[in-house]
Amino acid sequence: MSNNYYQSNGSEVALFKQAATQRVPVMLTGPTGCGKTRFVEYMGEVLGRDVVTISCHDDLTSSDLVGRFMVTGGDVVWNDGPLTRAVKSGAICYMDEVVEARHDSLAVLHSLTDHRRTLYLDRAGEVVTAPDSFMLVCSYNPAYRSSLKELKPSFRQRFVTVAMTYLPPEREAEVLVSEAGIDLSAAKRLVNCAMSIRKADDIFHFEPPSTRVLVTAAKLVAAGASELEAAEVCILAPLSNDGAINDGLRELASASLLGAATKRVDAGGVKA
Amino acid sequence: MSNNYYQSNGSEVALFKQAATQRVPVMLTGPTGCGKTRFVEYMGEVLGRDVVTISCHDDLTSSDLVGRFMVTGGDVVWNDGPLTRAVKSGAICYMDEVVEARHDSLAVLHSLTDHRRTLYLDRAGEVVTAPDSFMLVCSYNPAYRSSLKELKPSFRQRFVTVAMTYLPPEREAEVLVSEAGIDLSAAKRLVNCAMSIRKADDIFHFEPPSTRVLVTAAKLVAAGASELEAAEVCILAPLSNDGAINDGLRELASASLLGAATKRVDAGGVKA
Amino acid sequence: MSNNYYQSNGSEVALFKQAATQRVPVMLTGPTGCGKTRFVEYMGEVLGRDVVTISCHDDLTSSDLVGRFMVTGGDVVWNDGPLTRAVKSGAICYMDEVVEARHDSLAVLHSLTDHRRTLYLDRAGEVVTAPDSFMLVCSYNPAYRSSLKELKPSFRQRFVTVAMTYLPPEREAEVLVSEAGIDLSAAKRLVNCAMSIRKADDIFHFEPPSTRVLVTAAKLVAAGASELEAAEVCILAPLSNDGAINDGLRELASASLLGAATKRVDAGGVKA
Amino acid sequence: MSNNYYQSNGSEVALFKQAATQRVPVMLTGPTGCGKTRFVEYMGEVLGRDVVTISCHDDLTSSDLVGRFMVTGGDVVWNDGPLTRAVKSGAICYMDEVVEARHDSLAVLHSLTDHRRTLYLDRAGEVVTAPDSFMLVCSYNPAYRSSLKELKPSFRQRFVTVAMTYLPPEREAEVLVSEAGIDLSAAKRLVNCAMSIRKADDIFHFEPPSTRVLVTAAKLVAAGASELEAAEVCILAPLSNDGAINDGLRELASASLLGAATKRVDAGGVKA
Amino acid sequence: MSNNYYQSNGSEVALFKQAATQRVPVMLTGPTGCGKTRFVEYMGEVLGRDVVTISCHDDLTSSDLVGRFMVTGGDVVWNDGPLTRAVKSGAICYMDEVVEARHDSLAVLHSLTDHRRTLYLDRAGEVVTAPDSFMLVCSYNPAYRSSLKELKPSFRQRFVTVAMTYLPPEREAEVLVSEAGIDLSAAKRLVNCAMSIRKADDIFHFEPPSTRVLVTAAKLVAAGASELEAAEVCILAPLSNDGAINDGLRELASASLLGAATKRVDAGGVKA
Amino acid sequence: MSNNYYQSNGSEVALFKQAATQRVPVMLTGPTGCGKTRFVEYMGEVLGRDVVTISCHDDLTSSDLVGRFMVTGGDVVWNDGPLTRAVKSGAICYMDEVVEARHDSLAVLHSLTDHRRTLYLDRAGEVVTAPDSFMLVCSYNPAYRSSLKELKPSFRQRFVTVAMTYLPPEREAEVLVSEAGIDLSAAKRLVNCAMSIRKADDIFHFEPPSTRVLVTAAKLVAAGASELEAAEVCILAPLSNDGAINDGLRELASASLLGAATKRVDAGGVKA
Repeated sequence: MSNNYYQSNGSEVALFKQAATQRVPVMLTGPTGCGKTRFVEYMGEVLGRDVVTISCHDDLTSSDLVGRFMVTGGDVVWNDGPLTRAVKSGAICYMDEVVEARHDSLAVLHSLTDHRRTLYLDRAGEVVTAPDSFMLVCSYNPAYRSSLKELKPSFRQRFVTVAMTYLPPEREAEVLVSEAGIDLSAAKRLVNCAMSIRKADDIFHFEPPSTRVLVTAAKLVAAGASELEAAEVCILAPLSNDGAINDGLRELASASLLGAATKRVDAGGVKA
Repeated sequence: MSNNYYQSNGSEVALFKQAATQRVPVMLTGPTGCGKTRFVEYMGEVLGRDVVTISCHDDLTSSDLVGRFMVTGGDVVWNDGPLTRAVKSGAICYMDEVVEARHDSLAVLHSLTDHRRTLYLDRAGEVVTAPDSFMLVCSYNPAYRSSLKELKPSFRQRFVTVAMTYLPPEREAEVLVSEAGIDLSAAKRLVNCAMSIRKADDIFHFEPPSTRVLVTAAKLVAAGASELEAAEVCILAPLSNDGAINDGLRELASASLLGAATKRVDAGGVKA
Repeated sequence: MSNNYYQSNGSEVALFKQAATQRVPVMLTGPTGCGKTRFVEYMGEVLGRDVVTISCHDDLTSSDLVGRFMVTGGDVVWNDGPLTRAVKSGAICYMDEVVEARHDSLAVLHSLTDHRRTLYLDRAGEVVTAPDSFMLVCSYNPAYRSSLKELKPSFRQRFVTVAMTYLPPEREAEVLVSEAGIDLSAAKRLVNCAMSIRKADDIFHFEPPSTRVLVTAAKLVAAGASELEAAEVCILAPLSNDGAINDGLRELASASLLGAATKRVDAGGVKA
Repeated sequence: MSNNYYQSNGSEVALFKQAATQRVPVMLTGPTGCGKTRFVEYMGEVLGRDVVTISCHDDLTSSDLVGRFMVTGGDVVWNDGPLTRAVKSGAICYMDEVVEARHDSLAVLHSLTDHRRTLYLDRAGEVVTAPDSFMLVCSYNPAYRSSLKELKPSFRQRFVTVAMTYLPPEREAEVLVSEAGIDLSAAKRLVNCAMSIRKADDIFHFEPPSTRVLVTAAKLVAAGASELEAAEVCILAPLSNDGAINDGLRELASASLLGAATKRVDAGGVKA
Repeated sequence: MSNNYYQSNGSEVALFKQAATQRVPVMLTGPTGCGKTRFVEYMGEVLGRDVVTISCHDDLTSSDLVGRFMVTGGDVVWNDGPLTRAVKSGAICYMDEVVEARHDSLAVLHSLTDHRRTLYLDRAGEVVTAPDSFMLVCSYNPAYRSSLKELKPSFRQRFVTVAMTYLPPEREAEVLVSEAGIDLSAAKRLVNCAMSIRKADDIFHFEPPSTRVLVTAAKLVAAGASELEAAEVCILAPLSNDGAINDGLRELASASLLGAATKRVDAGGVKA
Repeated sequence: MSNNYYQSNGSEVALFKQAATQRVPVMLTGPTGCGKTRFVEYMGEVLGRDVVTISCHDDLTSSDLVGRFMVTGGDVVWNDGPLTRAVKSGAICYMDEVVEARHDSLAVLHSLTDHRRTLYLDRAGEVVTAPDSFMLVCSYNPAYRSSLKELKPSFRQRFVTVAMTYLPPEREAEVLVSEAGIDLSAAKRLVNCAMSIRKADDIFHFEPPSTRVLVTAAKLVAAGASELEAAEVCILAPLSNDGAINDGLRELASASLLGAATKRVDAGGVKA
């Protein structure tokens, strides 16, 4: 019984399996909270491999990845980092938000992502060849188009790139029901609310509300909050600090929640 | 008997409880000194959980949060940081002014703020799953709109966002009476003075005087300072270094103190 | 017998005592060398408390303030920093030129400057509650209006702000007599010279000559320098590197020294 | 039996041998993934010398190159870095993407790349003269014309510069067959697709698809992906985040895949 | 018998003695190589005090000044820095080119340069009061008017400022004779050459040739170089990399050397 | 039998000897690869002194120059750096490309380059006076006119500046014959090719080809490369990444090689 509920949205499962067969690394792209982390956990179960997760950030050194010497009981002993542990154990190494990492820390991945599939531990004087089951998976959100944080083309060309996006509304509503235990009609109203805001994203340029925030909103509803309140504190509040934009979005949100509610009544009337 | 006197100002108590029930993190927003810290301390008492407070700043490393190896008696021993201690003990971890933290230090929070509720201690080689009572609460003041210090949307979307603001004047005056022991009419005059300056904030763009500075001013009055003097050194002086603006604010302040005083005499006449 | 000769210039002594009674922190503002440090030393004697002085600068870490672990005789022992020592002993902690400190080092002061009056030593795992006699006093010179070095409003609002300035000329001359042992008429001429330059400050925007430089000039006069020479090397030379401005100021200075001298002769004539 | 399949593309083998004979260093230039690393591995086999590979990056210190003192069993022992090991053992030292290295780290190469052929280990107090078989080979991609990352002319003048580029289409298709095991006609269609995009590079200024990405695409095809799908996730997706450009490139790609397919059918007809 | 040949140029000796009597610090200003260092060495001999010299630079930490803990024979022992040694031994501490120091390193001087004359060794937990013979002397060249490297007015106001400049030509020529052993007429020609270039400095804005470069040129002449050659390599070459300016200066230089030579012949003719 | 073949190009040998006699430091200027390093090695042999070479770079700390404390066998022992070793042993200390060094690292040279000739080892608490045979020689290439990397005039004025340049063509060709063993006519053609490009440098502003690259090209010719090929990979390729410029230069180069070849045939004809 897995706690990794995953709804496939296209060909990503097949592509991931093909990359695994051919021992080539995979790059997942897509908006925040669309399910990249869950997808990797799911594929780990499908392929029967452990997943070693590394959250990338500006301060991640190559020593944090490959390991370092540490003083233990008076002796200086080498300690493998999570990347080295993943390589040695043939696990899936998942580097979350790889674009956040310092590019110099990524240089250690070069020999792992071409025909060599080898990790050079220069400081330990060790060379580790990856077993066939080892797989490197990275993810990033291409919507952050900061020139400082672009991945270099020569880095991106080392990966099979799998583009992910939000689930279609019906399937997304099913996720809310499954995760938060609210009824389907309420789930549809919350998804409807998110959809109306995602469409407005083209004009306002904010990070659109993800499936994750919808699950959180659904959980608050399950705990007794009104749908409008839950939409306010989970979906709208994180979008922007600009009062005028927020007012516009609040109108959109309440209209979509009410509209969906109205439809529900109608549909209920039809059903009855 | 609690020393956490807290005046609820809206739905924040209910939302906090719902988030606690559903084990989702909470983000408190609002102006400096409006009572965010006191609110978290109050909710800790209401829920019967300890509060571990971390004041965020530019120099806070992820090691400061999760822990580090230290040499003790010749041995190298891992020492949990305050975040790890809060996770292990199921406490409320309150990260004050989280926007001040280096964004790379915040990456360690990702796996704690989604469905995993897990802390990866990469350097210690340990994985800690949070008990149900653990709760992460962050706060920040959205009025500081520095582009350098914006929280990323992908980070904000992980939280239920509870917006806080100042108490209504009558309740704020009651706080001054309770905290500083001055009489209610003096408390109202000081609140009146603050209100007149808060309104001017739209024009002058400074950080408006908080409940905290009013409490300080009330304490000076209780210690023998005149109300005008206390308003000068506690409310006006920190606002701006610009002489012209300060003169304008001083007029506002003394007019509001006197006006309130006049009203008080009138009201007294009416009472008599 | 104190070596802290201090001339009160207004209500600062009363305000300081009121803040001490109410256990709220104090921020001293005013130009360089107007006597802020001496005032704190004086108040330490008046209140019968030790003063722990910390000169703030860019490189002051929070470890320098609160303490650090150090290896002593093979053991790793925690060493309190000056702030922690001041808190534990209930002293006045005086942070000189606090605006120079890195803002992240100041975050450790937050819990000390609100109702908590508590110092969190995260690395030592210790929580220190300040005794009633502990008092935090900071100072800075608001004339340095660098945007990089502005104190945040949320920080300034935590303090009672006491504005200090130069003594009136007669009292400043008395200080010169007391400190350098020159006669009163020479002291008045040096003060006169400084006053003429302080007035020109509105046009030229330099840091005006402080009481401290007048004391130094008076000491050189006491050691045999001519008044004009002492004014040149102590008062004029540090003002500016711009030759044209310096020539203008030199004229001002010698005119005021001579004018004062002339008046003195006149006054002497009247006295006689 | 070598696993280094290498297709020579011009005079690079002869030039490399001449440089090896004369003991002068070699600089390889050319686009990402055109085979520079494989060429060095191949020449190592041809010349019967070991290859020590160093992936250069911003954080590579000269200590990482030459070595450092380390505490081992209570003693402080010098540990040679990979450059020193290569010099001492007379190997080929291959510094991949040398333009990424900090220029100060490269200063240690000066005495190795002129008539001295000597490595000064200042911290170890050792001077190592390279044996005749030692050879320094660097590579970089001149298409990255960042002013921050230009190699200094005085550095480039120390090398024999061998310019490399993609193989001609027929030979590149043979590589795909050899590496991924797909049939020649499919290999030709993928190469055709890459050629059409490489031509568009002059207009769009992105890093063109390399032989490496073609091999990856061929591997996915071998694992069951359609050619269009493999082209999408391996060739197109890493090129750009700009939707409009990507749409244009996708048209180019599918046209070239289909065009080649059509030709294949024709050719098939001719063959039959 | 002192090796400190010093030619006084004005009132600097008297001012330095007065400052020493009154225990106030001295700031020496003036162009590079005009004799500031020699002056301090000379005053050290006159006053019978040791001189501790510290060459300031960007990387000088406050620990370099006051001292640090060091591991010696397994124990951690505090080691005084040169400033602390100077304070404890009552020496003259000479901080050369103080404007080059990081301003945060200078904060440690504040308590030494006002009425406290005290050094706070925060890390060692020690407070050192300076004996009467301790004297702080700093120097800088105000011609470098970089905004990054301006000394703060509040720092400059702590010193008696003694402005130094080049010696008059006759006395400067005597220095050349005394230091390099050339004859007076050659010395005068070299000084004449320097004077002509110093005058051109107002137009060209370079650092004018100092007494130090004249001494070096005189030494080369004593070793056999021609005067023009010595002027070329010692006086002209360091001035500028701009060919056009250098040609102009070379004309000036050779004209002044020849003109002086001509005059010498004339003078010789007159003498004869 | 020296391996330091050096062709004197002017008065540099005499000037170097005079500076050595007078114990003043020498600054060598000139284009990359014109023979500065060889000249210092040659003078070391002429004067019978060891040469300690230090390649300067951004990361060179003053500790790298003067030495540091290191843990050896449990004890902390001071280890002299190469500068200190050179001073103590009376060697020539050659700091190559001194302009690359951090200016703060150069401050330690001040007391070595004036009348003191003394090295202050502040951290070791040692003062080392240089013996007469010690000589400091620095070099830099003034063609790099980066404002960030200008040597300060006050630093340059401490040296006798010896300007070096390329040898005249006939002598440069002799160097090629001597170093690479090619015949004189081929050597002249390669020099001719370099001369034509050096002349074009005034228009194109690149670093012109040095004697060093000519030697490398000559070596490739000796190993079997054609002259055009050797010119391409040694002389032209390092000059520029700009295709248009490179095409122009290639024309220049082949014209000069052929022109020289033609002349050679003609000359041969004349000879015959």
